[in-house]
Amino acid sequence: MPVNFTPPVPEQLLPIEGVTLGVAEAGIKKPGRRDLLVIRLNEGAKVAGVFTQNDFCAAPVIIAKEHLLNVDASYPVCALVVNTGNANAGTGEGGIADARATCLETARLLGCDSRQVLPFSTGVIMEPLPLGRVLAGLPAAVADLKAENWFIASQAIMTTDIVPKAVSKQITLDGTTVTITGIAKGSGMIRPHMATMLSYIATDAALSQPLLQEIVSHAAENSFNRITVDGDTSTNDAFILIATGQAGNSAITAKESAEFALLQEGITEVAAQLAQAIVRDGEGATKFITIQVERGETPDECRKAAYAIAHSPLVKTAFFASDPNLGRILAAIGYAGIDGLNVNKLQLYLDNVLVAENGGRAPDYLEKDGQRVMKQSEITVRVVLNRGQASATVWTCDLSYDYVKINADYRS
Amino acid sequence: MPVNFTPPVPEQLLPIEGVTLGVAEAGIKKPGRRDLLVIRLNEGAKVAGVFTQNDFCAAPVIIAKEHLLNVDASYPVCALVVNTGNANAGTGEGGIADARATCLETARLLGCDSRQVLPFSTGVIMEPLPLGRVLAGLPAAVADLKAENWFIASQAIMTTDIVPKAVSKQITLDGTTVTITGIAKGSGMIRPHMATMLSYIATDAALSQPLLQEIVSHAAENSFNRITVDGDTSTNDAFILIATGQAGNSAITAKESAEFALLQEGITEVAAQLAQAIVRDGEGATKFITIQVERGETPDECRKAAYAIAHSPLVKTAFFASDPNLGRILAAIGYAGIDGLNVNKLQLYLDNVLVAENGGRAPDYLEKDGQRVMKQSEITVRVVLNRGQASATVWTCDLSYDYVKINADYRS
Repeated sequence: MPVNFTPPVPEQLLPIEGVTLGVAEAGIKKPGRRDLLVIRLNEGAKVAGVFTQNDFCAAPVIIAKEHLLNVDASYPVCALVVNTGNANAGTGEGGIADARATCLETARLLGCDSRQVLPFSTGVIMEPLPLGRVLAGLPAAVADLKAENWFIASQAIMTTDIVPKAVSKQITLDGTTVTITGIAKGSGMIRPHMATMLSYIATDAALSQPLLQEIVSHAAENSFNRITVDGDTSTNDAFILIATGQAGNSAITAKESAEFALLQEGITEVAAQLAQAIVRDGEGATKFITIQVERGETPDECRKAAYAIAHSPLVKTAFFASDPNLGRILAAIGYAGIDGLNVNKLQLYLDNVLVAENGGRAPDYLEKDGQRVMKQSEITVRVVLNRGQASATVWTCDLSYDYVKINADYRS
Repeated sequence: MPVNFTPPVPEQLLPIEGVTLGVAEAGIKKPGRRDLLVIRLNEGAKVAGVFTQNDFCAAPVIIAKEHLLNVDASYPVCALVVNTGNANAGTGEGGIADARATCLETARLLGCDSRQVLPFSTGVIMEPLPLGRVLAGLPAAVADLKAENWFIASQAIMTTDIVPKAVSKQITLDGTTVTITGIAKGSGMIRPHMATMLSYIATDAALSQPLLQEIVSHAAENSFNRITVDGDTSTNDAFILIATGQAGNSAITAKESAEFALLQEGITEVAAQLAQAIVRDGEGATKFITIQVERGETPDECRKAAYAIAHSPLVKTAFFASDPNLGRILAAIGYAGIDGLNVNKLQLYLDNVLVAENGGRAPDYLEKDGQRVMKQSEITVRVVLNRGQASATVWTCDLSYDYVKINADYRS
């Protein structure tokens, strides 16, 4: 089961004025599983997104980026369409045609142009999209469009996820209540590089398109780009932020404004909660681990050290076993590739327990203190490099038998 | 059990004139396990080595490099001393003192200077070396020195290894028979970066010191630096090459000579066999996988792609399950970070089965063909990038339940 995670309940998820969602069972996954989602946006809604940097990016990612790039006043984004059960990645020209056909049919049903539809897919790679089923399922999804459907939408995008992931939050901008609601999916093949598997966050706030793009990048950088389950960057990562402008706040246009800062903070917090939910539901996860690297020369070197620890199978299996075999963390820091690192100057903490300093075990460190922290389901690894003022945080999970089981069985 | 690996038998291992080896049970590991090895060299033997680039490199690595750097005619290397059961890494100044004390006692017993002794350790990181046991065990190891001890030496350096690794080979240089014998250990924390866990190869050939150094680098680059089990670069990697000069060949001094090429090839072959043995005995391994990336622009980008595939937990678990979920390989190539990669131009083969081309599944690819290859215990993944003339090969293994089990239980 996910680590210390209370799944959302439908009542917690606040509708966003201007956004309706509809789901269907299209038979792409097993019978009885919702696997198709349409998100319809009001006229005037603005959309920004970040996508995987995997060179083998999926056909829908290519089309969604193309459509988003060419958005203009005459062709604003009208809808998003998401299928699970098949990634439509590694599918060549046929995959591109399938993604376009999905947009075309969605547009026909909604009465807009196919260029106004953004397609997304998640599931198995290198198998052709069952286009017939997708197209046959679309009318039911469109018929289901409702503002209250965020919860079932979060279910409809799940693959190996055990729990749906959805968060709502309200903030006040200049006296006006603004709502933010988001959903995400992801559990394995998680080492986002620009974004995570799939996440959609909408707000009713009004703001300019450049500021929306600014926020989506900032939020991704501080949420989905800070998590890893297995170090595998997906072919289908996408994080989409929608602003419907229906809240009634005066449109935010200045990056220096207090309202921009508040909105960016609110959206980033929702994104971070969704990102952490992905790690808590990481394939086979039994522990949630926060890795903080502090006082580095640059954020980049802090990230290098944090990811080296987060990706080490030896570190991850030690967490699974609650075994304070913490020299493995030192080894990971040592091969992280930090230029001119002086290992004698750094400190390693497990929660508040000082484990290592001066290149070796701290004199007062006791195995039983390390053991106590390792047994917890929430653990913070803190590395203080003592060579600058930069820092970075990465969230990850342990590596268990179940990770192997889930990924050995995934297609069967 | 190791993948398609026949462990060496004592009779296969040829002594090297000028080298004697002695082992002892010093009680660093469990009772009844050989855990201490002394290798004594003849006067005039030349030694070259490559070491881990992990910043947290172990105390014995620091001392061995220091001693090797300062070798001169008055202080040639006289002996190597190796303990298993404790890595003496992440042990700060105390660890350095322990490594020096080990050299001092070995030198005293052998009647040489402590600067002439190279120390090595392997085992748990960040626990103090049990120096008393090491020192107490040394007299027995020295008393045991024999030319025929290569096999028990290969046993004495094992940690989580299931099988000992040792290879002998003879070549003819200008009419003279030259012998090469080597041993290695390693099973987990294997992603050598300059060398592997520990390997010692000796030859009786005579050659100059610069050429010996040339060969050790070339052999490492084409053997230990081409393997990975879990992507974790060890703190203690060391690969040492010894030339005793006792074979009677005229000393090789020209890099352009046929003899140099032959000797380099022979030593590299021994190193490659030992490196592959480490992968075959990789923790939890059930399959031996060769990853060949061809027709890249540079060897570096070929290595990037090969290591991305070799390190992907999703690819490794698919191999374990014999599941031809081969889109995972495309995803790994896609995030390998190859500059300007055109995914539509590459081909992916599993043995001789063409799996993907033109950005997607090959038209003639049949799941049953992929399935057949995936069920084998020896598999070659071949990626043809079609953008240049460079290539690289990496050897790795799958990721199984037993990898998790071994590393969750290692210290207990």
